[in-house]
Amino acid sequence: MKSNIDKDLLREREKCTFDIQELVHIIDGGKDKTLMRKSIEDLVLSIKELKDEVPEDYLSHAEKYENAIRKGCILFDMYFYLTKNNTKLDNSPSNVYRIHEGILKQVNPFILHFGLFMPTIMSQASEEQQAKWLKKNSRMIGTYAQTELGHGSFLRGLETTATFDPEKDEFIINSPAITSYKFWPGGLGHTVNATIVMAQLYIKEKCLGTHLFLVQIRDFETHKPLPGIKVGEIGPKMSFNTANNGFLGFNNVRIPRENMLMKNSQVLRDGTYIKSKNAKLTYGSMVMLRVQIISDVAYEVARAVTIAVRYSAVRHQSLLKEGEPEPQVLDYVTQQHKLFISIASSHACRVVGQWVWKRYTKVIAQIGEGNLSELPELHALTCCLKAACSRDGLALVESCRLACGGHGYLLSSNLPNLYGIAAAAVTYEGEHTVVLLQTARFLAKAWNGAVNGKKLPPTLAFLADYCNKNVQSWSDCSEGIVEGFKAIAAGKLKAACDSIQAHLNKGRQFEDAWNLCSVQLIIASEAFARYLLCDIFWKETQNMVKSVSKNLAVVLQQLVELYLVYWALEKRGDLLMYTMISKDNIELLQARYEELLGLIRPNAVPLVDAFDIRDEILCSTLGSYDGRVYERLMEDASKSPLNKQDVHDSFHKYIKPLMIKHKL
Amino acid sequence: MKSNIDKDLLREREKCTFDIQELVHIIDGGKDKTLMRKSIEDLVLSIKELKDEVPEDYLSHAEKYENAIRKGCILFDMYFYLTKNNTKLDNSPSNVYRIHEGILKQVNPFILHFGLFMPTIMSQASEEQQAKWLKKNSRMIGTYAQTELGHGSFLRGLETTATFDPEKDEFIINSPAITSYKFWPGGLGHTVNATIVMAQLYIKEKCLGTHLFLVQIRDFETHKPLPGIKVGEIGPKMSFNTANNGFLGFNNVRIPRENMLMKNSQVLRDGTYIKSKNAKLTYGSMVMLRVQIISDVAYEVARAVTIAVRYSAVRHQSLLKEGEPEPQVLDYVTQQHKLFISIASSHACRVVGQWVWKRYTKVIAQIGEGNLSELPELHALTCCLKAACSRDGLALVESCRLACGGHGYLLSSNLPNLYGIAAAAVTYEGEHTVVLLQTARFLAKAWNGAVNGKKLPPTLAFLADYCNKNVQSWSDCSEGIVEGFKAIAAGKLKAACDSIQAHLNKGRQFEDAWNLCSVQLIIASEAFARYLLCDIFWKETQNMVKSVSKNLAVVLQQLVELYLVYWALEKRGDLLMYTMISKDNIELLQARYEELLGLIRPNAVPLVDAFDIRDEILCSTLGSYDGRVYERLMEDASKSPLNKQDVHDSFHKYIKPLMIKHKL
Repeated sequence: MKSNIDKDLLREREKCTFDIQELVHIIDGGKDKTLMRKSIEDLVLSIKELKDEVPEDYLSHAEKYENAIRKGCILFDMYFYLTKNNTKLDNSPSNVYRIHEGILKQVNPFILHFGLFMPTIMSQASEEQQAKWLKKNSRMIGTYAQTELGHGSFLRGLETTATFDPEKDEFIINSPAITSYKFWPGGLGHTVNATIVMAQLYIKEKCLGTHLFLVQIRDFETHKPLPGIKVGEIGPKMSFNTANNGFLGFNNVRIPRENMLMKNSQVLRDGTYIKSKNAKLTYGSMVMLRVQIISDVAYEVARAVTIAVRYSAVRHQSLLKEGEPEPQVLDYVTQQHKLFISIASSHACRVVGQWVWKRYTKVIAQIGEGNLSELPELHALTCCLKAACSRDGLALVESCRLACGGHGYLLSSNLPNLYGIAAAAVTYEGEHTVVLLQTARFLAKAWNGAVNGKKLPPTLAFLADYCNKNVQSWSDCSEGIVEGFKAIAAGKLKAACDSIQAHLNKGRQFEDAWNLCSVQLIIASEAFARYLLCDIFWKETQNMVKSVSKNLAVVLQQLVELYLVYWALEKRGDLLMYTMISKDNIELLQARYEELLGLIRPNAVPLVDAFDIRDEILCSTLGSYDGRVYERLMEDASKSPLNKQDVHDSFHKYIKPLMIKHKL
Repeated sequence: MKSNIDKDLLREREKCTFDIQELVHIIDGGKDKTLMRKSIEDLVLSIKELKDEVPEDYLSHAEKYENAIRKGCILFDMYFYLTKNNTKLDNSPSNVYRIHEGILKQVNPFILHFGLFMPTIMSQASEEQQAKWLKKNSRMIGTYAQTELGHGSFLRGLETTATFDPEKDEFIINSPAITSYKFWPGGLGHTVNATIVMAQLYIKEKCLGTHLFLVQIRDFETHKPLPGIKVGEIGPKMSFNTANNGFLGFNNVRIPRENMLMKNSQVLRDGTYIKSKNAKLTYGSMVMLRVQIISDVAYEVARAVTIAVRYSAVRHQSLLKEGEPEPQVLDYVTQQHKLFISIASSHACRVVGQWVWKRYTKVIAQIGEGNLSELPELHALTCCLKAACSRDGLALVESCRLACGGHGYLLSSNLPNLYGIAAAAVTYEGEHTVVLLQTARFLAKAWNGAVNGKKLPPTLAFLADYCNKNVQSWSDCSEGIVEGFKAIAAGKLKAACDSIQAHLNKGRQFEDAWNLCSVQLIIASEAFARYLLCDIFWKETQNMVKSVSKNLAVVLQQLVELYLVYWALEKRGDLLMYTMISKDNIELLQARYEELLGLIRPNAVPLVDAFDIRDEILCSTLGSYDGRVYERLMEDASKSPLNKQDVHDSFHKYIKPLMIKHKL
């Protein structure tokens, strides 16, 4: 076994100063979870039909879909086997089922059946509805259709209508304009036969806002689209090419009244509308998805940096010193600068993701008891953290890709696909700018509260200290950096709120002032997210290291410190504006940063090994555990259908005639 | 005609305050060039065989290649028609032939025949060789094979060998290891029959460094690979999927001695090696490619922002004020913040690209007269400008893509492809970090010269002023910002050089000190590039506006000021460190920035119209001139081969059996 492993990687692994397995368990969330994950990976990988003979990237768009359905059905089958018909879904952030992402790296066309269709029924349908729709033999494979061609994040703008017909006790679903076509739902194209539809409810010509409806769209037997349904897929994308994202138009499609999801709002037989007790209740599932995205970013960044660090250990290039052999690329400090922040950031996102998840479960429990008081704060936290983490993820994955030079441009490295996956997260479940402005609205309100001496939500209590303080003192240590980010968050928020006030003083309307200051508001919202990331990552790590072995504690402290110092240097201008940091302090930070890179260097490969991502999930010619990079690049190329022929037909059809015509 | 145009776009165009055609001519480099470009566009677009029935993105990798060869041959034919067999190539930056990028949006497999194979023969082959290889009936379609699996930017590390056999008067070409396989050259896979090969020259067991050789790799008649040649394509990539990038291995392939390109170095019949008079002469073509990249970035960013601005004018979303209609997305200041910097940056790259091109032609003329004195400075300028512009391009294209929300994720928007194209430029023709460090080496030398009172190259003369100055005064105007960037460049360079010195003082070797400080060196190199971009863009614009009409001058000044203020705000921390700018000055800049966004807003659509990029080059469902976004999205989806069937075969093969098995 060892003999097949690249000698540089062997040497790197010998240098490891900590217990890799200990870190693996921490990342998985406990030894039991590691064991569970590994047993599922073994089980799924034992199915030889899940391996592709020709890599998916060589296939046409239609072939990719067929292959994904084939593999998706095997996994669907596996799901029934694993859950033994226990349909209780565990949505907590976890790496237990990530092997899935290795089998269908551009996403399972059935993903929204489990990820949104069933959860929405569980959370938004009445008990009778749940009993009916979740039982065996319901025949439904479903998705969730909210976004339309013309509207995304702004739900009030959705145009699909559901008009109550009291005579027949039915709703009539319609797409009144091309912009009202549902567009984007995964699996909608050709895979599902039912969907939850978000539509504007009309009763007696009165619009009562968006509600959810269960609509069958294809015949359960023949899979043919039902009358009035126009459905298909929307074409190729950056990634998610096997997700079968679809469009859907309705022309007078009738569904029974009982198909409106009635846990909260209801329409009675006579057309009486009973309003939901609290509109905020619909927040819940969006908040959950955003929390999951933070943890997903941790995993995608871990994948990218595992590939890039291993490749950088195997790759030798150029000269540091004349006459010496070419060094490993990982020995260049510029390469360490590109990569080690990704290792640290993956830990940061994981730790923060777990922290937010705990808050989420607490708030959900409170809601169950009728207490919604903490929901707005949670919503604000998850909005800006989703935005910041997904954007960090995008930058970090791309930095890892670029760090692999030309070979990182090959799809066989899997880095472009990881980029595509990371890119989607910036937009879906709340577009970046939109969610940042949602947090900003909460922050601006809190700032006004602080100025007026009102009680503030716990995570914003610090604002009270900043109402009359201009500059925060500076202290050269990790806590000092966290305090610095707190000062930046307060300072940016104050600046944005002051600008709004200045516009109001000039007689502008609040909405215009808000728009004019929105660039600053976004900056304030990002600054708040960065403070949260630094603060939570730092504090949670201090708790965690109390219970880990000494050597590992050293490494974990290096990672959190690297994260803090990296961001302090990135935001040095903001620190100069909002704290008493000096030019000398900044030079110290720069020196400490370079020192940390050197300290982490010997453990770089062990640190990515500890993410414990199997080759079958990495799917990368550059990142495999054995480091046989060049062999794998050639091996993948040899699978190209174009390489099955020495002379491609196009030579005879096109090139030869051209050569003859022009006497080439 | 007008009636088919989206009403919002009509309204936007009515608001235009300047003469669009005047700006079109400026961007093209003169009215004659505009006319020439348009006539070529008309000519090429009249060929109906160049239109795809099924968009390329739906095809398999192999189908894409065949389609590209088909279209590439038509364009090859067109090239002969246009040039009337006049093979003189004009390499100056120009948009005259950009229609090509619309026809083969993932690159022509023949591109390197014209782009590198022929130019290399022209510049590196002797006159007799040129006469022989450039004549009719040479039978060659060629490429340029330099990069290997194991080595990219570091040419000295290349492993392919060319060993002189004095007995047979031949070179024997070999690939001694898997890492020595040529990898990446465009067209190499299945398209070309000859290639320039860079290999280590060996005479009598002595290695004489890398040289260029012309090698036939396929039979001219049958196109079969010649004995000893192993050739194929390397698989799918982020973009460039029709470029037919290939690999190539040699096993004792013999070529005549006369196939070494002998303009500079020579090998005589008896094995005598005559060294090139000046090793720097090989710089030339690399410098040229890097200059072209700056202008290419201008064009790719123009494409991306044309798409994003038009889409943002057509798209309505959310509410600014309760009760009013949904505003155009372009009215959100956050959207203007995302997009207008791309408009300005495209102009910046074009202007700077032209400026560098002028310097390049001057230096090349000097070289012709035996004067190489300005080549090192030109090399340093092009290195950091290539790095900075390509990196800006990547960020700007992605910002445009993200500004289009979910629909920007669709390949039919063409934004992902533009991202892939922009991403490649960061790595090719000199990897980002490598070229930045090359400039840094020149800068560090100049800094030492400045400290020691030596004469400095013209663009670095300012360093002399900064040897004993710590902080630059601040002035609230465009010149002040340019001066600020000059101060940052000097300050960052000084900091990096001081750090190196500190390491040397501790007894470290220079090479180790260099590596330890390389993150700072890169920052210094980037800062120098940003200063150049600001300085040249500003000064050239001041010259240009003297000869344009008044209304256009106002707009051009707004764009250059936006560029300066945007970057001043981005680099506010550096300005705080290296100039006397105050917090109040920064707030003024922020206010001015927001003001400039408002001033540019009414001309946003006309400004992208002035890039004058035809729909056939934009290739975008979101960006067409008529703004019929939603219709085009649905139209493109309707072309999906998957949508030709109501029920896809995979339902019967996989889904139905699953439903039956599990009583779904």
